[in-house]
Amino acid sequence: MIKSIEWKEDHLRIIDQTKLPLETVYLDLFTVEDVFKAIQKMQIRGAPAIGVIAAYGLYLAFRAAKDISSAQFFEMLNENVDYLNSARPTAVNLSWALQSIKSKLNGITDFNFDTVKNRLLQYAEKIHQDDYERCEGIAINGQEILTDHSRILTHCNTGALATGGIGTALGVICKAHQMGKKVEVFATESRPVLQGARLTVWELENLQIPVTLICDSAAASLLSQKKVDVVITGADRIAADGSTANKIGTYSLAILAKYHDIPFYIAAPLSTIDGDISEGKAIPIEYRDANEIRKIFSKHPITLPEVNCWNPAFDVTPPELITGIITEENVIYPPYELNIKNAITSNYIKVRGDLV
Amino acid sequence: MIKSIEWKEDHLRIIDQTKLPLETVYLDLFTVEDVFKAIQKMQIRGAPAIGVIAAYGLYLAFRAAKDISSAQFFEMLNENVDYLNSARPTAVNLSWALQSIKSKLNGITDFNFDTVKNRLLQYAEKIHQDDYERCEGIAINGQEILTDHSRILTHCNTGALATGGIGTALGVICKAHQMGKKVEVFATESRPVLQGARLTVWELENLQIPVTLICDSAAASLLSQKKVDVVITGADRIAADGSTANKIGTYSLAILAKYHDIPFYIAAPLSTIDGDISEGKAIPIEYRDANEIRKIFSKHPITLPEVNCWNPAFDVTPPELITGIITEENVIYPPYELNIKNAITSNYIKVRGDLV
Repeated sequence: MIKSIEWKEDHLRIIDQTKLPLETVYLDLFTVEDVFKAIQKMQIRGAPAIGVIAAYGLYLAFRAAKDISSAQFFEMLNENVDYLNSARPTAVNLSWALQSIKSKLNGITDFNFDTVKNRLLQYAEKIHQDDYERCEGIAINGQEILTDHSRILTHCNTGALATGGIGTALGVICKAHQMGKKVEVFATESRPVLQGARLTVWELENLQIPVTLICDSAAASLLSQKKVDVVITGADRIAADGSTANKIGTYSLAILAKYHDIPFYIAAPLSTIDGDISEGKAIPIEYRDANEIRKIFSKHPITLPEVNCWNPAFDVTPPELITGIITEENVIYPPYELNIKNAITSNYIKVRGDLV
Repeated sequence: MIKSIEWKEDHLRIIDQTKLPLETVYLDLFTVEDVFKAIQKMQIRGAPAIGVIAAYGLYLAFRAAKDISSAQFFEMLNENVDYLNSARPTAVNLSWALQSIKSKLNGITDFNFDTVKNRLLQYAEKIHQDDYERCEGIAINGQEILTDHSRILTHCNTGALATGGIGTALGVICKAHQMGKKVEVFATESRPVLQGARLTVWELENLQIPVTLICDSAAASLLSQKKVDVVITGADRIAADGSTANKIGTYSLAILAKYHDIPFYIAAPLSTIDGDISEGKAIPIEYRDANEIRKIFSKHPITLPEVNCWNPAFDVTPPELITGIITEENVIYPPYELNIKNAITSNYIKVRGDLV
């Protein structure tokens, strides 16, 4: 399996996802600033993966420090949590990971900096391992929506590169292949950053799973020609009513799937549920630089240099378009408001991220 | 106004649309082969424009010839019509222009090669002028669907570059601007060939009409945020039931418009109606090379070199998603089967392209 995140004793090693698939370049991240930049530049992306890497980032903020008092520590902790949180606003996993570490440390009475520092690393490793296991759970639970031969349309990248494990939506697909089911994947290229064309194609070809790349605009035609049995995507944040923020274009696919009477599933860990947000319109949406559209790979211009662009990185799919949400515990079906509430209640630790 | 096609005494001059907007390169076409290649490589594109250029191409097939017998002429004529027709299969305007010339010549009794050759050029010029006038008609008739301040989403390029005049869908928009109406345009980039990002943006910025570029995948989110009053696109072929083949992604926009209760219009000359085709599924769809997706501008790879791609150049929008079809005669509304039949009957010459 591809390892998108590796802890190397004193630093993080990640694959620079902006360079894939043309080059496989590894980046060594030694400081919290390195981690912040890697998230912001999307050298690493995918909601679960940025949660994991942010947790390591928090440790890196303290790694070189010595003899810090309790007061200094908590001040620095808050600053660094806010700093890392500001790298990308939409994916809840980032703030979830940081918040769950912070809440553990807030309970400390007998402060010893070296002990606390060690615990920061242990928490990061635990969140990493935890994400691996959540992915396994999602991948297994997702099998109930696939037959022995499924033709699946997916969007963006939700595989090993996007998580600390096998992936979410792509994890379901890869697990089906591992289990001997026949899968055929259609991957949208996912403009503007082309995660589908670059990352999903790369992962699937590595695993020798048949994949066909399409332009985002061709999905409607593909669905109308009955070439797809099911659409599965990931999620960056799920509100209490089931509304799901995910890569721009997800909402479009959900409408098109509904129109063609094709099931549309979200695959995401319970940590993606933000119970504090009651409905989709309250989810903060990140708008990114116009140059992401104007220039391919920030290099090759495709339009006039000053043209105004509208570049939301995410959109929100309302619950009525979602057939089910595949989590590590079960597949959540409508009515979402009730069933998400039940999922939060019965899996409080997994949703809230208590690391005990 | 931008002149995308100019007749220069003995040859055609076109703007190489594959180079826009980064470079403005003119191409001089002296032979029918030059014209064929320009159409096939999409150095010129847009259904009406390729009809016009094909008509000139037919003349160029004979320009250098001398002393040809009637039998030789008709053999060459058929060969060249078939040859040019094969350059691109979906846009009906190509075969429409060639067929309308052919049917005129088929009636000739008193054959004289020089006379016939001159008539070929006159026919091409007439089709060119005719397209200019049809665009004016469409642009005027389209005003009935716009208010004094319209926010319009359009797809691909349907302006002066795509026609022999002001354009079809973009013509309606530009005419509104000329008439002093306030228009704000959202242009999809229109992958894979990026006609929106490259050509529509270029035309609108030249005309100082406000334009915002979006990725194809962002249209659903844009519509949900109530930023668009109306969607207008062009057409490559319209069946007798109103089903409309147009640039890949049009069908997607039509579904999204319906879902958000936003009107969706087609703008096209009557010559785009193919009365011989009763329904959408009978329209031939061109599938283009995978490298169009794999490499931006055939140069910059965005994915693995051998990945399988599915690359239809067009899709078909069913009549139930179309609010109206703006033509040079009137805006055709449902029921399309009846009203298209009426349009064909009362405008037989404009549909059939009799050049008398």
